[in-house]
Amino acid sequence: MITAKLIDHIWATRKADALNGYKLMLVEIIGGRNAGERMVVADVISAGIGDRVIVTTGSAARRMLGDDNLPIDAVIVGIIDGDCKFDERAPT
Amino acid sequence: MITAKLIDHIWATRKADALNGYKLMLVEIIGGRNAGERMVVADVISAGIGDRVIVTTGSAARRMLGDDNLPIDAVIVGIIDGDCKFDERAPT
Amino acid sequence: MITAKLIDHIWATRKADALNGYKLMLVEIIGGRNAGERMVVADVISAGIGDRVIVTTGSAARRMLGDDNLPIDAVIVGIIDGDCKFDERAPT
Amino acid sequence: MITAKLIDHIWATRKADALNGYKLMLVEIIGGRNAGERMVVADVISAGIGDRVIVTTGSAARRMLGDDNLPIDAVIVGIIDGDCKFDERAPT
Amino acid sequence: MITAKLIDHIWATRKADALNGYKLMLVEIIGGRNAGERMVVADVISAGIGDRVIVTTGSAARRMLGDDNLPIDAVIVGIIDGDCKFDERAPT
Repeated sequence: MITAKLIDHIWATRKADALNGYKLMLVEIIGGRNAGERMVVADVISAGIGDRVIVTTGSAARRMLGDDNLPIDAVIVGIIDGDCKFDERAPT
Repeated sequence: MITAKLIDHIWATRKADALNGYKLMLVEIIGGRNAGERMVVADVISAGIGDRVIVTTGSAARRMLGDDNLPIDAVIVGIIDGDCKFDERAPT
Repeated sequence: MITAKLIDHIWATRKADALNGYKLMLVEIIGGRNAGERMVVADVISAGIGDRVIVTTGSAARRMLGDDNLPIDAVIVGIIDGDCKFDERAPT
Repeated sequence: MITAKLIDHIWATRKADALNGYKLMLVEIIGGRNAGERMVVADVISAGIGDRVIVTTGSAARRMLGDDNLPIDAVIVGIIDGDCKFDERAPT
Repeated sequence: MITAKLIDHIWATRKADALNGYKLMLVEIIGGRNAGERMVVADVISAGIGDRVIVTTGSAARRMLGDDNLPIDAVIVGIIDGDCKFDERAPT
């Protein structure tokens, strides 16, 4: 999984039927050498912009959504506690 | 998933039989540290060059196409709305 | 698999129900060109901060946990012996 | 999928039995920020050195080969037409 | 698959039970832009330190080992012949 910050909504009116009803959000990886990479994730736990989240990618992402036929490869699996002070810096 | 821009068609007369009938397009990732990476994706929702799209990769890509035996690892799952103003810049 | 160092705990009160009971840790890759990348992993072998560990990613991660329905894509599969002196430097 | 150029053969006399009969080739990614990355791919459509090809990676690669038990994670799925003039440059 | 050089053993006394009996080795990718990345792989074809090998990653790795329940995501599938003179340099 990776740690990321929610930075925006992504709106797509024309999309795969299977994606109807899913909220898609843009996240940016925080911490470490891959900080700054972005991806689009599905959110089913009502995270908000600015939240730090844990994202699961690959085939495991569909497990949270309970439907192995979804064309979704990344999903928010947790919202990191506000008082969880892990090191968010990129290495120098 | 990733956000990308459609930049060209890819034509391949000699190809796996299973790919017959699929439109293959070249996309370039937009936004974030991985901006500028390119990949070839299948398009079944009639996107056009210049469109900003959402691409699903890995085993999830085959889910949209409804055939688990396709040798396809990336597919367009949505066209981002023209008035969706997310930050497309790479981080400085 | 990758070699990594355990650097912190990650706490998330709001998370996928399936993650309840799993200890999530932040690791940083050691050695080689990808040194410094971080990821969140599940720990079921009681590793501690500072330990050097082996991490399996992707669908293989769920195999260790014995539940193919977990939204987990990275897991600690071993703790590297303290006297195992492999080269941990990044290439120059 | 990715676009790549075939640059060499890879010969391995000692190998997994399941790989017997498969031609393994070295390719280099062309175009975009990941240009210059190399990988070993299986070729079953008789591509030649210098050809520009489309490569599918991950579990989808086995789909083209019709055997889900092969330890192969990348395969050539098409040869790009000689007159297909997509932009092969890396971004500046 | 990728081409890599075997550079060391990795010893882990505390590990997943399923890994018992597997020899784990550290490899470094050779050639191309990703040269210098390292990973831990399982070896079942008795490769030695200094050998140049072909490594399969992802779910395909388990196929060589004949057990879909192993928490292993990378395996040596071949030893590159000593007289196979492919270009091992990174691009300039």
